[in-house]
Amino acid sequence: MTTKIIKKEKRWAVAFTFLAIISIMGVFWTPSTIDLAMFNASDTINGGDVAWILTASSMVLFMTPGLSFFYGGMVGKKNVISTMLQSFICLGVVTLLWVTVAFSLAFGEPVGVNLTEGFYSFFGNPGTFTFMDNVGLLPHKQLAPTIPFLLFALFQMKFAVITPAIITGSFAERVRFISFLLFICLFTIFIYAPLCHWVWYPTGFLGSYFGVKDFAGGTVVHMSAGFAALAGVLVLGKRKNANHIPTNIPFVLLGTGMLWFGWFGFNAGSALAANGTAAMAFATTTTASAAAMLAWLFFDKLNGRKASALGACVGAVVGLVAITPAAGYVSIPESMFFGFSTAIVSNLVLYAPFMKKIDDTLDVFACHGVGGIMGMILTAIFAHGENASLLHGGWLVFAHHLTALVVVSVFTFFGALVLFKLTNAIIPLRVSAESEQKGLDLSQHGESLEQIKNEPLGIANLMK
Amino acid sequence: MTTKIIKKEKRWAVAFTFLAIISIMGVFWTPSTIDLAMFNASDTINGGDVAWILTASSMVLFMTPGLSFFYGGMVGKKNVISTMLQSFICLGVVTLLWVTVAFSLAFGEPVGVNLTEGFYSFFGNPGTFTFMDNVGLLPHKQLAPTIPFLLFALFQMKFAVITPAIITGSFAERVRFISFLLFICLFTIFIYAPLCHWVWYPTGFLGSYFGVKDFAGGTVVHMSAGFAALAGVLVLGKRKNANHIPTNIPFVLLGTGMLWFGWFGFNAGSALAANGTAAMAFATTTTASAAAMLAWLFFDKLNGRKASALGACVGAVVGLVAITPAAGYVSIPESMFFGFSTAIVSNLVLYAPFMKKIDDTLDVFACHGVGGIMGMILTAIFAHGENASLLHGGWLVFAHHLTALVVVSVFTFFGALVLFKLTNAIIPLRVSAESEQKGLDLSQHGESLEQIKNEPLGIANLMK
Amino acid sequence: MTTKIIKKEKRWAVAFTFLAIISIMGVFWTPSTIDLAMFNASDTINGGDVAWILTASSMVLFMTPGLSFFYGGMVGKKNVISTMLQSFICLGVVTLLWVTVAFSLAFGEPVGVNLTEGFYSFFGNPGTFTFMDNVGLLPHKQLAPTIPFLLFALFQMKFAVITPAIITGSFAERVRFISFLLFICLFTIFIYAPLCHWVWYPTGFLGSYFGVKDFAGGTVVHMSAGFAALAGVLVLGKRKNANHIPTNIPFVLLGTGMLWFGWFGFNAGSALAANGTAAMAFATTTTASAAAMLAWLFFDKLNGRKASALGACVGAVVGLVAITPAAGYVSIPESMFFGFSTAIVSNLVLYAPFMKKIDDTLDVFACHGVGGIMGMILTAIFAHGENASLLHGGWLVFAHHLTALVVVSVFTFFGALVLFKLTNAIIPLRVSAESEQKGLDLSQHGESLEQIKNEPLGIANLMK
Repeated sequence: MTTKIIKKEKRWAVAFTFLAIISIMGVFWTPSTIDLAMFNASDTINGGDVAWILTASSMVLFMTPGLSFFYGGMVGKKNVISTMLQSFICLGVVTLLWVTVAFSLAFGEPVGVNLTEGFYSFFGNPGTFTFMDNVGLLPHKQLAPTIPFLLFALFQMKFAVITPAIITGSFAERVRFISFLLFICLFTIFIYAPLCHWVWYPTGFLGSYFGVKDFAGGTVVHMSAGFAALAGVLVLGKRKNANHIPTNIPFVLLGTGMLWFGWFGFNAGSALAANGTAAMAFATTTTASAAAMLAWLFFDKLNGRKASALGACVGAVVGLVAITPAAGYVSIPESMFFGFSTAIVSNLVLYAPFMKKIDDTLDVFACHGVGGIMGMILTAIFAHGENASLLHGGWLVFAHHLTALVVVSVFTFFGALVLFKLTNAIIPLRVSAESEQKGLDLSQHGESLEQIKNEPLGIANLMK
Repeated sequence: MTTKIIKKEKRWAVAFTFLAIISIMGVFWTPSTIDLAMFNASDTINGGDVAWILTASSMVLFMTPGLSFFYGGMVGKKNVISTMLQSFICLGVVTLLWVTVAFSLAFGEPVGVNLTEGFYSFFGNPGTFTFMDNVGLLPHKQLAPTIPFLLFALFQMKFAVITPAIITGSFAERVRFISFLLFICLFTIFIYAPLCHWVWYPTGFLGSYFGVKDFAGGTVVHMSAGFAALAGVLVLGKRKNANHIPTNIPFVLLGTGMLWFGWFGFNAGSALAANGTAAMAFATTTTASAAAMLAWLFFDKLNGRKASALGACVGAVVGLVAITPAAGYVSIPESMFFGFSTAIVSNLVLYAPFMKKIDDTLDVFACHGVGGIMGMILTAIFAHGENASLLHGGWLVFAHHLTALVVVSVFTFFGALVLFKLTNAIIPLRVSAESEQKGLDLSQHGESLEQIKNEPLGIANLMK
Repeated sequence: MTTKIIKKEKRWAVAFTFLAIISIMGVFWTPSTIDLAMFNASDTINGGDVAWILTASSMVLFMTPGLSFFYGGMVGKKNVISTMLQSFICLGVVTLLWVTVAFSLAFGEPVGVNLTEGFYSFFGNPGTFTFMDNVGLLPHKQLAPTIPFLLFALFQMKFAVITPAIITGSFAERVRFISFLLFICLFTIFIYAPLCHWVWYPTGFLGSYFGVKDFAGGTVVHMSAGFAALAGVLVLGKRKNANHIPTNIPFVLLGTGMLWFGWFGFNAGSALAANGTAAMAFATTTTASAAAMLAWLFFDKLNGRKASALGACVGAVVGLVAITPAAGYVSIPESMFFGFSTAIVSNLVLYAPFMKKIDDTLDVFACHGVGGIMGMILTAIFAHGENASLLHGGWLVFAHHLTALVVVSVFTFFGALVLFKLTNAIIPLRVSAESEQKGLDLSQHGESLEQIKNEPLGIANLMK
């Protein structure tokens, strides 16, 4: 018992040591001289664009607390706080990872192969932007030509933060906190950052070779989170007692409101400028989510279920997921079809018998995974632009997109599976049966929605 | 019984069919060529203005979830979720209405009469902007000359969304969900869109003939919602049991915070630019709400009531309503008087004996109706500008405004009355006595703040 | 008894009379002619900057409701609403004070002494900007050269609003509402406004003579609130029953999310422009809070406490406090050290035996006071720029900063002590033992989280 506790303490001591090293190194860090060839002159900075991306970055940050309420309201009452904290903590862990190594992996000097067709890259040099070295206040010529490159890095950071937070819904109510922290580190480094590079870096092979279009992260964020969620469920197994009802529907409504608000930063911000494309992305985001909310609600009712607030919320979020890859590429009437059709497909998957076999606590795969897949397919059908999609370039273009879809699915699912198993080998992912029974709020964090009697005063004593 | 259920199902099948038609039509929609004569060239787009209106639109969207908490916290505990959903659902229904027909009705090619004094219009051609046809990314010369016209349409959309949501407070705890959905469609098409045209379209008869000034929607949004609320209460009748206390004051505080935040988008955004007028509207909005919050609180206390958090919240919102029509037209010291005097008048009406005779659940008429009327009168007294108000043009100008006030009151009250009766004839507006007793959360949506025992797992089963 | 009640009523009558005078005076107020020499021409207004500062001001406003949830979730269940209202009410009281007198005291015509080294000022002429007179829509040459001066005044207003709200955490659960209102008036006029002048007005003696750097209010906002909190605790004394546990951890998480979101307006907005400095401040704010959140959590765990959601929230806020004075002056790796080290120092103080001797309900001094002090010291070590800090100018510069730190500590602590005692002499600060036992929600505001049975209908009756 004593040994075990010491060993447990060690895990945290290791985590603390890592944090201390990074934080103290910072003081002695000597920034490199910035390679000016990559950057535009400072007079290319556009104040309106900066204003909008500062705002959009704040809004995307606000989505993570939003997600914590969206998920926290749905779980059982012994796991609300732990579920919320799992989202919140990504604001700490992923932020530090991003500035130290992950941004470099995603957008650093490309590492890849020279084929006759051109150069295709797979990830960035992890040392290019360590501690935001070389990430100055001048605009990067290729990635965001009118805003400080640092602001681009921050906007992208918020996407990296929310992705592992989305995964948490699938294995809620049974995952060990410290294992989860380890997993999100691995996921960010080995899955998110490379995938981000493949799709969004100019020479990334999915974007440049397969021609994949992902306006705001349907593939990078939602598909990857959905498949990682599926892998997580398989590794962690079912809950002992999967009977629960959502603790607090108003929290789900609040979370949906916060997500919806933030999603305008997410999608319209992905124009990286305050321009017409941003307005168009704003519009399609609005109409897709509206159509999906109503479709989910009406479809539920036609299938003998109640038209519930929870259904409206899930529907709206599914619509937001679906339009994300296409937000700036399709028309408003098309976006309504994105929302409508994805809501129905996602709803069908969610209630499909084969989904009962696994215990995806908050249906992350059915919502984000299926929503992401549907979004990617529909984008491959409708995206405007020369050779952008089936309707604007033909079947070959479409086939390329579908191949990319398979590549992403396989990579994110099996990649996450390996990382979950690796994590599990280092620190068991699942809490003890006793802790699960007690609820994670109390067993992992010593907190509870229900008040515990006879506790002494102040924050100080509350955390002992 | 079976027949009745089938008939009930049919209502939802009709709703679903409408949604399906609209969503699928979108795919086959061929956009018209935009009539360039209406628009400025793309270089008139101002990045700073775009950034601010993108932000402001997001903030106004956030007001609807805010309203759901403001109202949801005040109702009894068996009706919290249903009340919240009634606000939320407007984000779906009104959004789709807006892009299909209502924006055209409000801002389409004007339909009106040619008098010797000029051309005065009553509504827009419903086909002008179907599916946002002709609503491109160039700025509209008259309506918003420095931002994409699409962004103007989106900003206006958020106003259309929140207006029916405001009405919901009056008949909370007894309205049938599907009837409510039908009513908001009718209200948006037959009351909101025309009124919006009358006041804000350049040739709209209230603005151009009567000289009505409404900076950000005191008349269009709040007076119309207030009078529709009154009509609704009269049609639906009193609750069986009107005894309840607010379930969750912190939700009311949260909702107020969200509304307050969003209101800066609402009022300062109505400058349609990031300029001095926006700053002035921001300022008057701040000071009016501050004065009203304190006035309500102190006035309550002087009248032997407690200085309550609920009072502070209601007071602040009443102040925000009052300054809305005048936000960009009056000075900061004047705005304090707007807030102070409206809070007292609204408070007096709310506690007046004649208001006890009706059952306006959350006092929508006393807050939004009276607040809107007071705002309109005070604007007609104080608005700066040549011939803008009593103090800047004289009694004739003021008489015009008061006539317009009567026109708006009569139109919105009797209009809503007719629409409520029409709705009631199609689907009964009021739930059964049994459902009312049970609470709408459970009877309409199968959800509850109180946990229901022995429910199976996942979202899937939660919605059955 | 009757006399006492009448006397109590009188306090509120006085408050109401003040409000009425201010509000009615506004109608008759004749604005002065603006002294154009102070201002830039209107073409120096930058739309992007205006867009960002309008947004940032809204975000900072949103922090006050955020704080109400952060604090409200932590107190015992009989004091949640009262604690929340104490934050909220600052949006009323301080706003009106700011436009009438406090903005003048902070940024009006400087009153000071001419020394041989130059002119050093101590406060502004209270009549310079009464009712925002002379505060026009042109940019002020020195204070904010690219945005309307009015917008600068509004942005600054939101800082003035949140400062007394921060103090409330220390004496929660025992302060009388009306006394608290009096105290925040005195605090804003006699402590906040002068301190603001000392640090941020160009000739203010702390900034110009001592060279104090405070990017976004670490000294002005957080240190002053922290020391005032300490003084308040000493004057009010311990609670009768300090045993309580936080009522609602999700509220704390929500509040933290709202504060975090708003803090980007606070810190990145303090660049007063949408430029590279804003992006840099955004970045350092992000990384400092991330490092602090993790440091607090891991450090708690290593000290035998649980890794709790509450700890994560407090840690994140402490990190935000620490980076505030330096946000635009240090590098990203340095900011991580700010967060990391401050979290540990603040955590050590919070759990230190000497802190048990006082009853700082929500540990305001340990968080904001210590966070502010640490931020000021670290800024004095790391701030970039010629002669800005120990590492960029040497020990003499550092000594100046430390002297200033002592000056601020002494002024805010003893100043607040005097104001608390003065308030106490006018109206007793502490509620009766009976009221304290009952809880402030019920005794001060007639409201309760727990539903009170048999109450009649509507808002009207709820406030009686």
